[in-house]
Amino acid sequence: MEAYMSSIGSKLQMLTTSDHASVVSMNLFVALLCACIVIGHLLEETRWMNESIIALIIGLCTGVVILLISGGRSSHLLVFSEDLFFIYLLPPIIFNAGFQVKKKQFFRNFMTIMLFGAVGTLISCSIISLGAMQFFKKMDIGPLDIGDYLAIGAIFAATDSVCTLQILNQDETPLLYSLVFGEGVVNDATSVVLFNAIQNFDLTNINATIAWDFFRNFMYLFVSSTMLGVLTGLISAYIIRKLYFGRHSTDREVALMMLMAYLSYMLAELFYLSGILTVFFCGIVMSHYTWHNVTESSRVTTKHAFATLSFVAETFIFLYVGMDALDIEKWRFVSDSPGTSVAVSSILLCLVMVGRAAFVFPLSFLSNLAKKSPNEKISFKQQFIIWWAGLMRGAVSMALAYNRFTSAGHTHLRGNAIMITSTITVVLFSTVLFGLMTKPLIKILLPHPKHQSRSMTISSDPTTPKSFTLPLLGEAQDSLDDLGGQDIGRPSSIRALLTTPTHTVHRYWRKFDNAFMRPLFGGRGFVPFVPGSPTERNPQNQWQ
Amino acid sequence: MEAYMSSIGSKLQMLTTSDHASVVSMNLFVALLCACIVIGHLLEETRWMNESIIALIIGLCTGVVILLISGGRSSHLLVFSEDLFFIYLLPPIIFNAGFQVKKKQFFRNFMTIMLFGAVGTLISCSIISLGAMQFFKKMDIGPLDIGDYLAIGAIFAATDSVCTLQILNQDETPLLYSLVFGEGVVNDATSVVLFNAIQNFDLTNINATIAWDFFRNFMYLFVSSTMLGVLTGLISAYIIRKLYFGRHSTDREVALMMLMAYLSYMLAELFYLSGILTVFFCGIVMSHYTWHNVTESSRVTTKHAFATLSFVAETFIFLYVGMDALDIEKWRFVSDSPGTSVAVSSILLCLVMVGRAAFVFPLSFLSNLAKKSPNEKISFKQQFIIWWAGLMRGAVSMALAYNRFTSAGHTHLRGNAIMITSTITVVLFSTVLFGLMTKPLIKILLPHPKHQSRSMTISSDPTTPKSFTLPLLGEAQDSLDDLGGQDIGRPSSIRALLTTPTHTVHRYWRKFDNAFMRPLFGGRGFVPFVPGSPTERNPQNQWQ
Repeated sequence: MEAYMSSIGSKLQMLTTSDHASVVSMNLFVALLCACIVIGHLLEETRWMNESIIALIIGLCTGVVILLISGGRSSHLLVFSEDLFFIYLLPPIIFNAGFQVKKKQFFRNFMTIMLFGAVGTLISCSIISLGAMQFFKKMDIGPLDIGDYLAIGAIFAATDSVCTLQILNQDETPLLYSLVFGEGVVNDATSVVLFNAIQNFDLTNINATIAWDFFRNFMYLFVSSTMLGVLTGLISAYIIRKLYFGRHSTDREVALMMLMAYLSYMLAELFYLSGILTVFFCGIVMSHYTWHNVTESSRVTTKHAFATLSFVAETFIFLYVGMDALDIEKWRFVSDSPGTSVAVSSILLCLVMVGRAAFVFPLSFLSNLAKKSPNEKISFKQQFIIWWAGLMRGAVSMALAYNRFTSAGHTHLRGNAIMITSTITVVLFSTVLFGLMTKPLIKILLPHPKHQSRSMTISSDPTTPKSFTLPLLGEAQDSLDDLGGQDIGRPSSIRALLTTPTHTVHRYWRKFDNAFMRPLFGGRGFVPFVPGSPTERNPQNQWQ
Repeated sequence: MEAYMSSIGSKLQMLTTSDHASVVSMNLFVALLCACIVIGHLLEETRWMNESIIALIIGLCTGVVILLISGGRSSHLLVFSEDLFFIYLLPPIIFNAGFQVKKKQFFRNFMTIMLFGAVGTLISCSIISLGAMQFFKKMDIGPLDIGDYLAIGAIFAATDSVCTLQILNQDETPLLYSLVFGEGVVNDATSVVLFNAIQNFDLTNINATIAWDFFRNFMYLFVSSTMLGVLTGLISAYIIRKLYFGRHSTDREVALMMLMAYLSYMLAELFYLSGILTVFFCGIVMSHYTWHNVTESSRVTTKHAFATLSFVAETFIFLYVGMDALDIEKWRFVSDSPGTSVAVSSILLCLVMVGRAAFVFPLSFLSNLAKKSPNEKISFKQQFIIWWAGLMRGAVSMALAYNRFTSAGHTHLRGNAIMITSTITVVLFSTVLFGLMTKPLIKILLPHPKHQSRSMTISSDPTTPKSFTLPLLGEAQDSLDDLGGQDIGRPSSIRALLTTPTHTVHRYWRKFDNAFMRPLFGGRGFVPFVPGSPTERNPQNQWQ
């Protein structure tokens, strides 16, 4: 009886203690998130900073404070967890990106995006792997096999789409935004295939059969992930259109949209597909059909709630990476040979830059060859910005590196510790330095951006009429600015319509959409008037 | 090298496997949530069902299916976790309740609510403890000491405010709603104090000093929790009013409101206060000040996003309790003596009913004594509904029972297993049976409710002008219906203003609010016109 009571007592004691430690860290995290938002707002006017960099810096500072308080024992409150990142933080960010993306821009540049995202990532990965193999073999960094080198290639070929979203502006530079962000989404699918292939395939003898398997695997993953996302989106549109007809309920509609979007991501994970591709296309379909089937309140709520969730998740990730960067355990292995660590990080950073240059410029050349109109070609200055804006490495690289080189968040081998610290260095350096310089760089290279959309609300607000009033000029927008306006007045719209096959595809799609899809799944102009559901206030809404 | 590679391989294997199991269960959960929403919508018109009961039943069915598939080994996918419940699911529900509550009703009945919530819970807890001690000592259910009996009292004195929210309607029965729900919130604070007191105080010899300590502890907890909630709410109002002035950004505003609300809850947990009281008052302050300082889009978004989160969390809890109920491990202990288990559950259910009757009717009598106007008195029929609507026991009872009688979700002692299964039985029985009968009961006892607000949107929509057009009749609303309308036309408003001190307090508060609080923290009518922030569309908005 005594023993029984004391066991209960100690159990409760333990429960309370463990609870309280996690409560302290959650308090700190939430308070820091609030601080990031407030400071981000105060520094909004400066042209150098953005929320990611502020969150990174605040995270780093907090890490230093914790390190001092704990007497150098630990710097972070939570061990970086892949689950937290891939299951809770990434889905809202990518879904929101699909939900708010300018669909016309995205699909018009579809072939270029695929070229950059798939072929480009492969090129980048090969160059980084080969370069790492070449340089690291001569250095003293512990045992690394061919699988490790290929993993390094995949880790550093994964661009950071989250950071891109914050640095490029969809309204100011629509072509660049859709290219760099679209590439980031496809890049993720490619990275997942590459990483899984490296873990599963026998890579000691690569031949044509394996390459063909690899290609088939990628195509299967891409097509089925996209299909799954489209299907989930269409089901949500159908359910809301049929079931809720005449009895709209905002809370249920919003809940259903949120849950279905998350379900698409989790289903993709269930079938070992790319959840990121799935949830991205689910977002596109939901904004095209489902969003038009709900009440006005639901539209406002979903638009802003998804943007807010994505914004909080982004800030959280950068805060997290910043706090994790100073984890003393990993740095201890490196501290006896700081030269090696600096050399490894520098080599990796150079390889990232070379690897990206090796596909951006040649593939842009190829893409330009296929386009007849000079307005649709990617100018050299734009190519340079595409190269630059994709140099940042972020949480995806961190997550992959942790997956490959640590065991439950801890490192005991010197080579692995060096790889982890180098990844952290590359992520911090590229995010802070390249991130800080992107905005001024765009200002210098493309000198006349629109200044109408400074604040975050407006920039994430897709009801700006720009792409609606210029539906046929489309991506030529920036080239026009770039060429000094010499092409204004030319009837480029008609010629583009006749020459570019994309436009023809788009026309057929519109026909099919109007004749079959919209009557079934709803969408702009195809939702009958419902009492209690006010019609759109902005008839020029370009969510189509 | 070989060993190193194989260890990495097995680690990845393990990671992938454990990941995939959790992915499967998350998929199932999200899909079931979607099913609950759709089925709940389809069955909305029936007067018996509500979303909680549907979720419970779907959860039970899923439990049966899993039990059959796994061949009787396990019935649930997740072990009931207090953390999940108290840290993630409960805060949005209680915050939303504070955010959407009719403040005038709540504060007018403040004394009655306190009486029911604090004194009533103590009475109920004592009766259940004494009754359990009396009956269980004669039965063969293993060793239970005085601490266990008092814990049983605290566990079964905790009412289920979540279920109340779904069964009573704020617009149809405002007095009952504010009394039963307000009691639920105060009840939670009392339960927490009671439960902690039982764990910490020496209960073998209760004397006046311990009783006084206990009272002081409760007062400290109540006052400081409330203060913390009010403070956090005011800080959020001040930050948004001062910092965002003229440069409103919907996403940042929504994110800040959400994070500050959650911060208030976590701060309360940090200081061992009642998070539920804190986040409830934070919700009230935020709807009174902060909500008026943000843009129109933020207002729509927060109102519906908070309601949706709360709705999803409620459905999740009931689904969860339903799935957990069939957990085979606990029932195995009980299966050899089904009679004992049924007897224990029946005794507890009777004690819950007696314990509640023992304070609702006497305290209503006391409360009626203090009121001069017959319109403000609680009629016997209303007392009966208050008694009935508070009989449901829910996730709070489950969480407390798991805390006291299990170790990491598993039970190895027979007495503890019986307590857990009895708690599950009481929760299921009271929720399904009492829950199913509450709506018809209200229809029979109070026959003329307004039918304007059937759908969920409208019932959670606080812009119905009812309580605005009848500010001085207030809670007399239902008594009027009850008394057959005989008092309509009497100038009860003026007399009530002269006789009831609550109204005087309210007048002084309005003066203070207008002179000092609103100019500092913003609020209705005290936010200067901001470009980009459209003024309210509905000037008769009663969020005051």
